[in-house]
This record gives sequence, structure tokens and C-alpha cells, in this order.
Amino acid sequence: MTGTRDHGGGIDAAVARFGGARADWIDLSTGINPVPYPLPAIGPEAWTALPDHAAQATLEEAARAFWAVPEDAAILAAPGASSLIARIPALAAPGTVHIPAPTYNEHAAAFAAHGWTEGEEAPDARVLVHPNNPTGRWYSSDDLGAPLTVIDESFADVAPDRSLVNFANGPGTVVLKSFGKFWGLAGLRLGFAIGPQNLIARLADMLGPWPVSGPALAIGAAALSDRDWAADTRIRLNEDAARLDARMIRAGASVVGGTALFRLYEVDDAAAWQDRLARHHIWSRIFPYSGTWLRLGLPAPDAWARVEAAL
Amino acid sequence: MTGTRDHGGGIDAAVARFGGARADWIDLSTGINPVPYPLPAIGPEAWTALPDHAAQATLEEAARAFWAVPEDAAILAAPGASSLIARIPALAAPGTVHIPAPTYNEHAAAFAAHGWTEGEEAPDARVLVHPNNPTGRWYSSDDLGAPLTVIDESFADVAPDRSLVNFANGPGTVVLKSFGKFWGLAGLRLGFAIGPQNLIARLADMLGPWPVSGPALAIGAAALSDRDWAADTRIRLNEDAARLDARMIRAGASVVGGTALFRLYEVDDAAAWQDRLARHHIWSRIFPYSGTWLRLGLPAPDAWARVEAAL
Repeated sequence: MTGTRDHGGGIDAAVARFGGARADWIDLSTGINPVPYPLPAIGPEAWTALPDHAAQATLEEAARAFWAVPEDAAILAAPGASSLIARIPALAAPGTVHIPAPTYNEHAAAFAAHGWTEGEEAPDARVLVHPNNPTGRWYSSDDLGAPLTVIDESFADVAPDRSLVNFANGPGTVVLKSFGKFWGLAGLRLGFAIGPQNLIARLADMLGPWPVSGPALAIGAAALSDRDWAADTRIRLNEDAARLDARMIRAGASVVGGTALFRLYEVDDAAAWQDRLARHHIWSRIFPYSGTWLRLGLPAPDAWARVEAAL
Repeated sequence: MTGTRDHGGGIDAAVARFGGARADWIDLSTGINPVPYPLPAIGPEAWTALPDHAAQATLEEAARAFWAVPEDAAILAAPGASSLIARIPALAAPGTVHIPAPTYNEHAAAFAAHGWTEGEEAPDARVLVHPNNPTGRWYSSDDLGAPLTVIDESFADVAPDRSLVNFANGPGTVVLKSFGKFWGLAGLRLGFAIGPQNLIARLADMLGPWPVSGPALAIGAAALSDRDWAADTRIRLNEDAARLDARMIRAGASVVGGTALFRLYEVDDAAAWQDRLARHHIWSRIFPYSGTWLRLGLPAPDAWARVEAAL
């Protein structure tokens, strides 16, 4: 019963069309780090007990320290940034929203579902995907200031110095963080909203009590306290992104942008590229609004040889 | 950032007040089966990948079969029944809602937060907690029929023949199921809404894509396909409930009701009973609206000796 909007993933459909065993496919259609944070031991009570306030508070404190959240901003852990994106338009009465396009399409869908209309001039709300997906564009504090301003930093952990989280205490401002992408654990469903107390309290009410699973609380708290892993991961992601760019340029593509978690290329015929890679059982991302953009996530260490051979 | 409504759990506060190591406390303040479904092996992709449609569909099919969901009703997996309870009042314009009291208090809080007012006469919505928590009352089809009817079957798996799920295809009807309680995995955050296609599609939109974690999809699908475990568990829960009743009656309590997952007793002074058990590091549930009701969950097999000694 999930929606049918265009997303990455969908590898099941690709397998059905191009054959092969699902386990043998290389999925480059997302921006998820292919070297996940190593799972720590999870105690039985994380599975069996209702997550208690202490576990939730421990995670939120680790997140607050990791992201240098302003003291007077509140933070809320949620079952994925997507659960927050779906609810944020309910924080204000419907009006006009400016969502610079192209970008991740769940924001526009969620605002539309709540009766908002698009409008660029003095909008009642603005959504900045920072860095933008798929272009990699970074915004600045000059872009803030709408009565409701959403800064989606789902991919910002590759370059924390670019974060706008220090504006999260501004009125009407909500900064979103994703755990699944940088830490490579998208199945865990963990994301965060950071903003002024009144808005975050309303989001908390909308999610209900115990929004985050016990394993997600435990794993998230461990990962967000591990700065060495994060620093090493940033270096590796940047090296791998450069390696993929070099290969793609040699294959005739040019770099449009992206982040260290996914790369956006200009090619002659994106659908033909996607089909060609799919015949090698490599799944990529193309966009309904562009015939020439191809987005690739980074291969896992053991997948590089096949990707390079296919290119 | 979760609410402050009265709930079971809260054992952290009890430990702080009465001492002892948290791990040595016996928590009887909830209605969670203390013998959880044994965790199956979880593949790495359940943690790393965005849950795909196939995994979600596999879980929902297992749930459909387990609960004998009417063919023309839809089913939606969610991160806990609580995430659905928080959103259900948004399915209709605010009006009057009848929630027979006393009962689980999240329903009334969620409806109030959405601008509904209480009203028993020809209400616009009715919530039936079936069986009721804490009294154990079961409802019948005669109690249905409000334009929006919520049947919360969070504790109904102890007696599936009493389920009203066969009415889930009725207009305006939503049946809720909880995975955490009967299967003893409350930390997993998994619940279900069952109802007509239009209502369930709207709930799905409110939750956003990928609402349920990969581990929850995998574990839920395995557990809901295991009818032997469910049958054995029902027998054990009923035996343990009878054993607890016998002990409590001997200790001077009388049985008010409950289900095979929790028992509700009448005692002379509930707060004094709670304190007495807490000095033995056993946590129980009392209610702000009653001075004489004490609710106890079932002890785990290795906890019976201490509970019986404390009584």
C-alpha cells in the first residue's frame, strides 16, 4: 500500500525484466553508502521491550552532539526521514510552497497532498534539499527565511561543514537528517527532525509514542558516537566518487554534479545507458524529466570490477 | 520528545525510586508476552537496503492469511499500532467520538489533538478496544456502525475466534492489529491497519513510503506464517494467566477481568500493592482513575518464583 511515485530502488522490477538472480544484481539506483556501519551487538530487550524514554534520550543526545545541534533547538528521532517529510506540510495552514526543481519528489507530493500549491514568489514555505538530489547543489543562509523552511540534509553528512543545522533554531525552520544513507542502513528506518521546540513537539505528537524501533535506537546511538568511522567513511566515499567519475568520463559521460554518495552524469541517451548496464545486472537511476541524466550510487568494494567492466 | 500520557512501562523511574539494577527488575506493567517469538536469521539486506515492495507485500500477505482478512479489505503494515492511532482521527472531519471508558488512553488523546469532542449519542466516530484494556471486555457486531469505527484488536490474538476483522471491509471501519504484544517483540515497532481500500490508502499516504523497517518486515513475515507457535502460545498464556489469578486470589485480590496477556485485579489499595511489589523490584500498573485496580502482565518463566514469593 505504498505510493507509486518515481524512486530509486525498484530493483525487483529490473530483475523481472532483465533476468538473473536478485542477489547477483548490483544496485546503484540509490544514494546509500554500500559499506554500512558495522552492526553492534543488540541486546534482547531492544527487540522485546517498548523503547523507553532513556533509550530515546540516549540516541537523541548522541545525534545532538554529532550534528552540533543548537542548544535551543529540539531534536526528534523518527522511523525514517520519509515519515517526517509526509507530516511536515501539516505544520502550517496550506499556502504556497517553493521547492526548487528538480529534486527529491516526496516533498512536493506531501505538500500537494495537504492542499499546498506551488509558488516561487514570497512563498509560505520553502524546501531546500541540501545538498540537492540529484544535482548536488548546496544552498546558503541567503536561501532561508520563508515562514516554514525545510532543510533536507539527508545527504549532508558527506560534508558536515556545509550543514545549515545552526539555523535550526530559527522560527519555522526544520532540518531533516537521514541515518540510512551515510551509515548505509536504510532498512533500519531512522531519521531526525531538528527545529524550534514548538514545531518538533507537534511532529512528535503526529508520530505517536515509541516511533523508533529498539534496534534503531541502539544502532543509531552507537553509530552517531563513532566519529572515527564517520571521518574514515567521508574519505572513502570521496575517493570512490572520484574513481567512478573517472570511469564514466572515459566511457563518454560528463559530470553534472551529485554528492559523494551518488553521482549525476550527462550521457547521450540515459534510457539506453540504463538498459545497457541492466544487461550486466547493474541497476541505475534515470529521471522522468530528463533524457540525458544518469545517476549512479557508489559500488561496494567487491562490485567495482563488474561495474568497471560493464562501463 | 514523546508525550507524557500515562502508560505502562516507565520502569526507569521505578528503578530510580526503589533501587536495584534495572536488569534485575521484573516488569509486569505491560501486556507484552514475556516469551517472544524466537528471532529468525535476518539477512544483511534487511538492514542495509530500503525495504522494497516485495518484502512489504510478503509481510502483508502473511498477515492477511493469519488474520483471515476479508478479500476486499486492504491491509497496511506500520511502525507500531501507535503510529496508526495517532493518524486515524485525520481520516474524517472532526466531530464527536465515543470511546467507552476506561480504556487505552492514546485514542482519546489522538482524537482530541485533532479537534474531536467526546459524545456518546450517535457519534461520528467510535473506538472499541477489543478486548478492552484493562477490563478485557469484548464487543460485538452490535457495537459497530458509527461513520468511522475503529476496532483496536491489539490484544485479540489470544482469542482469534472473537475477532471482528470480518467487518473490516465495512465503510469507515478500521481494524488495528499489534505485533509487539502477542509475539512479544514490542521493540520491533510493527502494527497493521485493516479496512476499506480508500481509508487504508489515506493512512499509507500519511505514513510515507517505507514505513516499516527491514528487520520488522522479515521477522513479521516469519512469525505470522508460524501457526504452531501461535497455537502453543495461546495455550501457555491461558495457563499462566490462570496461575497468576490463583496466586493473586490467595493474596487477597479478586479478578476484575483482563486478557490472557494481562490480568486486572481489584485490591484494597492499588498504590500500596504497587509499592510493595516494587520493593521486591517487580513493576506493576495502576491507574490514575482507580484506587483499587492493579494490572499485572504475565511473568517470564524464570520470573515466576520471585513473583510468587513477593505475593
